[in-house]
Amino acid sequence: MSSVARACVVGASGYAGALTARILWDHPHVSLETITARSEVGRALSDLYPRYRVPLVMEELDPERLSSLDVALVSYPHGAAAEVVAALRGQGLRVVDLSADFRIGDLDSYAAWYGAHKAPDLLGEAVFGLTELHRSEIAGADLVANPGCYSTAALLALAPLARAGLIEDAVVDAKSGVSGAGREATPLTHFVSADENVIPYGVEGHRHAPEIDQELHALGCSERVTFTPHLVPLDQGLLASCYVTTTRALEADELRALFEEAYDRERFIELADVPPGVRDVRDTNVCRIHTSIERRTGRALVFAAIDNLWKGAASQAVQNLNLMLGLDEAEGLA
Amino acid sequence: MSSVARACVVGASGYAGALTARILWDHPHVSLETITARSEVGRALSDLYPRYRVPLVMEELDPERLSSLDVALVSYPHGAAAEVVAALRGQGLRVVDLSADFRIGDLDSYAAWYGAHKAPDLLGEAVFGLTELHRSEIAGADLVANPGCYSTAALLALAPLARAGLIEDAVVDAKSGVSGAGREATPLTHFVSADENVIPYGVEGHRHAPEIDQELHALGCSERVTFTPHLVPLDQGLLASCYVTTTRALEADELRALFEEAYDRERFIELADVPPGVRDVRDTNVCRIHTSIERRTGRALVFAAIDNLWKGAASQAVQNLNLMLGLDEAEGLA
Amino acid sequence: MSSVARACVVGASGYAGALTARILWDHPHVSLETITARSEVGRALSDLYPRYRVPLVMEELDPERLSSLDVALVSYPHGAAAEVVAALRGQGLRVVDLSADFRIGDLDSYAAWYGAHKAPDLLGEAVFGLTELHRSEIAGADLVANPGCYSTAALLALAPLARAGLIEDAVVDAKSGVSGAGREATPLTHFVSADENVIPYGVEGHRHAPEIDQELHALGCSERVTFTPHLVPLDQGLLASCYVTTTRALEADELRALFEEAYDRERFIELADVPPGVRDVRDTNVCRIHTSIERRTGRALVFAAIDNLWKGAASQAVQNLNLMLGLDEAEGLA
Amino acid sequence: MSSVARACVVGASGYAGALTARILWDHPHVSLETITARSEVGRALSDLYPRYRVPLVMEELDPERLSSLDVALVSYPHGAAAEVVAALRGQGLRVVDLSADFRIGDLDSYAAWYGAHKAPDLLGEAVFGLTELHRSEIAGADLVANPGCYSTAALLALAPLARAGLIEDAVVDAKSGVSGAGREATPLTHFVSADENVIPYGVEGHRHAPEIDQELHALGCSERVTFTPHLVPLDQGLLASCYVTTTRALEADELRALFEEAYDRERFIELADVPPGVRDVRDTNVCRIHTSIERRTGRALVFAAIDNLWKGAASQAVQNLNLMLGLDEAEGLA
Repeated sequence: MSSVARACVVGASGYAGALTARILWDHPHVSLETITARSEVGRALSDLYPRYRVPLVMEELDPERLSSLDVALVSYPHGAAAEVVAALRGQGLRVVDLSADFRIGDLDSYAAWYGAHKAPDLLGEAVFGLTELHRSEIAGADLVANPGCYSTAALLALAPLARAGLIEDAVVDAKSGVSGAGREATPLTHFVSADENVIPYGVEGHRHAPEIDQELHALGCSERVTFTPHLVPLDQGLLASCYVTTTRALEADELRALFEEAYDRERFIELADVPPGVRDVRDTNVCRIHTSIERRTGRALVFAAIDNLWKGAASQAVQNLNLMLGLDEAEGLA
Repeated sequence: MSSVARACVVGASGYAGALTARILWDHPHVSLETITARSEVGRALSDLYPRYRVPLVMEELDPERLSSLDVALVSYPHGAAAEVVAALRGQGLRVVDLSADFRIGDLDSYAAWYGAHKAPDLLGEAVFGLTELHRSEIAGADLVANPGCYSTAALLALAPLARAGLIEDAVVDAKSGVSGAGREATPLTHFVSADENVIPYGVEGHRHAPEIDQELHALGCSERVTFTPHLVPLDQGLLASCYVTTTRALEADELRALFEEAYDRERFIELADVPPGVRDVRDTNVCRIHTSIERRTGRALVFAAIDNLWKGAASQAVQNLNLMLGLDEAEGLA
Repeated sequence: MSSVARACVVGASGYAGALTARILWDHPHVSLETITARSEVGRALSDLYPRYRVPLVMEELDPERLSSLDVALVSYPHGAAAEVVAALRGQGLRVVDLSADFRIGDLDSYAAWYGAHKAPDLLGEAVFGLTELHRSEIAGADLVANPGCYSTAALLALAPLARAGLIEDAVVDAKSGVSGAGREATPLTHFVSADENVIPYGVEGHRHAPEIDQELHALGCSERVTFTPHLVPLDQGLLASCYVTTTRALEADELRALFEEAYDRERFIELADVPPGVRDVRDTNVCRIHTSIERRTGRALVFAAIDNLWKGAASQAVQNLNLMLGLDEAEGLA
Repeated sequence: MSSVARACVVGASGYAGALTARILWDHPHVSLETITARSEVGRALSDLYPRYRVPLVMEELDPERLSSLDVALVSYPHGAAAEVVAALRGQGLRVVDLSADFRIGDLDSYAAWYGAHKAPDLLGEAVFGLTELHRSEIAGADLVANPGCYSTAALLALAPLARAGLIEDAVVDAKSGVSGAGREATPLTHFVSADENVIPYGVEGHRHAPEIDQELHALGCSERVTFTPHLVPLDQGLLASCYVTTTRALEADELRALFEEAYDRERFIELADVPPGVRDVRDTNVCRIHTSIERRTGRALVFAAIDNLWKGAASQAVQNLNLMLGLDEAEGLA
């Protein structure tokens, strides 16, 4: 595609939206025309996030005024996004939605976590935007539901095993930096609460679990996995430590081969010989994965590290956008 | 006991030894007479650790000169402790050993991780020093093998379930602050490596696993648990997140009751209504535990937080020492 | 004093108030009867701050119901404290006020930072509670105005030079941990803002400057010092780096002797041979000071480290309370 | 320049060298042919620094084998660089040296900090590589002495005042992240030492001071400034807080205008309306500066934030290299 797509970021004041704007601002084939926000209207994004150096001023959202644009990347809170996405679709824009609103196909499951869905008619056209699992559908989609950060890491870690029918049972213990809790200043995100701390949360159930279940099921795994997130004292980064009881005994080499087969041609997935640290993938779209077999138990261990704001949100949104626009999926992400 | 016990700390330059010295320095019924070290001989401990404010000067170890003392707390590296403990026992001192050298009863299992044992004859008299599990044997022991930090948290989290025969399978995902890696400056402990990072290690097997297996087995659980440690960017603190498939379905209330029964009279174990953060137990001998049942899977989740240098090492050593001396076990630890 | 003083902490939900309550809870000669708060009424302090382990429940403030108590420690925001202190004084309680409301004798100077004073009649009886400078007046005071954290470190660093008439000019560059910004969750205290950051603030003038000026003036120094605070990514700790152009050339030994003379009998001031780190004084009432002469310029350098929540707030309040009650000033602070 | 320059990085295993290699690896007009190291020979750089994703393998240095290359960027320890630079110059390569070896024109001053100079004959051709001060000489130079991180921030903050003859006296209080202390694992760089700490060092004199003096003198300022560095708990970032007594009273607007005049056309210097945080410049070549006049004292305050590894080392080296090669100085740095 030689022309340039005209884009807007809707909800640019939050962490994921702001980073999406920053990536698009430097994108060679996308022109970022407009950014909107619910708070901070009238401020330049570079005031709020000096390090992103995006001089655009945040405006109030008026979908009609955006009708001349080609695409919108929407970064609204869960529940609030659906209506906005519907309005933008009504104006003819193709949309990547970073919220949970179009990730879950089952309306009851969605309602249990987020309340009644406000644009159920659009669910049919939405494609789950884990790029490596749904590349071809994404390319043709008008609405892509970008996955959650936890789901991204957990699913990339488990997909090769799920597809091979090897998961008998799985535990996902995930650790996320504080940016994953969003820009809102709360007791949880206060420096003095998070610093020198590690804390599990959502221990009886977390809203990302249905996404994980849904996608594993689509891959042929009917087991429900245990999933528990933890908050760790760093800003960006997410590690999913996955403990899989396999349906049959696996050697380390066989496990590794399974992942090589799945991911060797993936440009944003790295198979590492050593366990990944989240620092290895900071500020990148990369998911870095290590597999091993625990000697004492024979269990398969898979560790997947991503940057929760990049592959877990903004850069995967751009990766999907590239596919939708017929561009090289790495454009603007190097 | 009204008299004062005369004590030494052997290996006071490392983190655990230094903190042991600091606790004993303020102990109302123990007189810290001597501290020794392999490095830093001739320096005051308060030079090396200003915040501990212990003015004693580190000496070279000469067991014969310590024969007039009552007790020794030994904080040497694994493998190097055994001979020193033997020498001190030969001088008639009762010993709390903070290394792994006397924790594992099975010599082959020990050798697999640490090499040939250098004082196997003493293994018979050693008591595993997880206070809450072995209180009465510790009281009468001449040699207490203080458990590892990971073992302490994992075993306190799993013991009530193990004792009740409820563990069918368990995964322990543990997160430790960097002080757990010791005082040696290495690439792993460099600030720039650990900061903004989370990294799994020992993923194919970790030397604390045999301790956990041994003690669970003693409680009647023959399963081997999966255990994986992670390094997180904080100095002191350890969280063990335990995922237990139970032999029969459990309600949250029943699970909680099991822990209340086990720990309600324990002064250093807190059962919390919310998941514990390691910040909650910093600089204390407390193990803080939360239990829940994950709704989607029915799995029992137990989270146990300790300070790896305190309950995971130095303060548990003093807790054990108190018992050996017939003192209130909380003496010096409030 | 053999009897026990009955105390309350008014404003126990904030960082300084909560720590004050925790110190008093374990104090051998003070009985903490009541804690109040403006928010979080009805919650146990141990819910809000698990690590402090104070089971008292926060109540609404009703000064009349506190009339049977002996002393109150008030930790309200600047401006809001004056009226509360007046009410408590009206009930006959002696008060240590941790706010700025009674620190500044000059009403205009106060008003410039905090607005009109709400209890100016009480200013006359207030004593500035920097213990080491005003010990005897504090002992007899009914109202002690506990100094700010920056003032505490800066004044302890500069007082010996000011008293000797040696300050021709001074720059104080101060670095504080995030707890100094208070418990309120704001963009400034969000983990993602403060982490991996160092940021100056209040650069055109800071409200602690008048306290510093006032006290230096009382010591005979009429110069106004430059004072700039910075936020650094840690929870507790404050370092004041003081750069003093002296009225005459000083040798390093002479400078050191000046500080030894001033502080050698002070139990909570440490003169260190090496520059202090804030980690050296964490969770203590200690101010650790190092002096040197910069060779190239002849300037006197004084570095003072405190824990902003302890010597900079709560523990100095208790130190002052001890004096007011005729107790050893270290009681409850060891 | 349309052709591609062939480059090597000598000393690629340290932080600055590794980052230099990473920047050159992606540089559109430079081909990174070889990387060498004194340790870690035979390992791929991407093993040592996974996040840099440079697959080149570190070799032993053999200057003769590099004779076909155009340029070398040398990142050796101070003192060790001079001989290597001489050898590379002897092979005809143009060199950017990141050490201090060619920064200081006065041999006695150099010797006082680093010992006898090992290639004094080359000093005459060396240009001090603070790009914004010496752009034209750098363009024609065969040997550029890249400045230290502290010097870079301090000089960019003070140059406009020095050039205008406005500095009567100045204090520079600098705060640096731990990467500034280098990759070597030492007690100072251990996570547990640096975490939750702020610590001044080099308080009686620091080796960067002569560079600052020399350059200020060249700008017409004969005063020696006080300079004190501090270590703060973050990985990358450096803030220089500069307190200047001016030779005449300045208004804030006049001060600001002075900096605008000096820097308005500089692409890597940002004049900010608010004090800069080091987070604002992380992973960039930008120096972000804020100026103000302290109301109480009339003193000029200048705060300059850089990333110590980027503008303070590697990216400024590439900025200089670009000039030497006749390229746009921002090439490869956006």
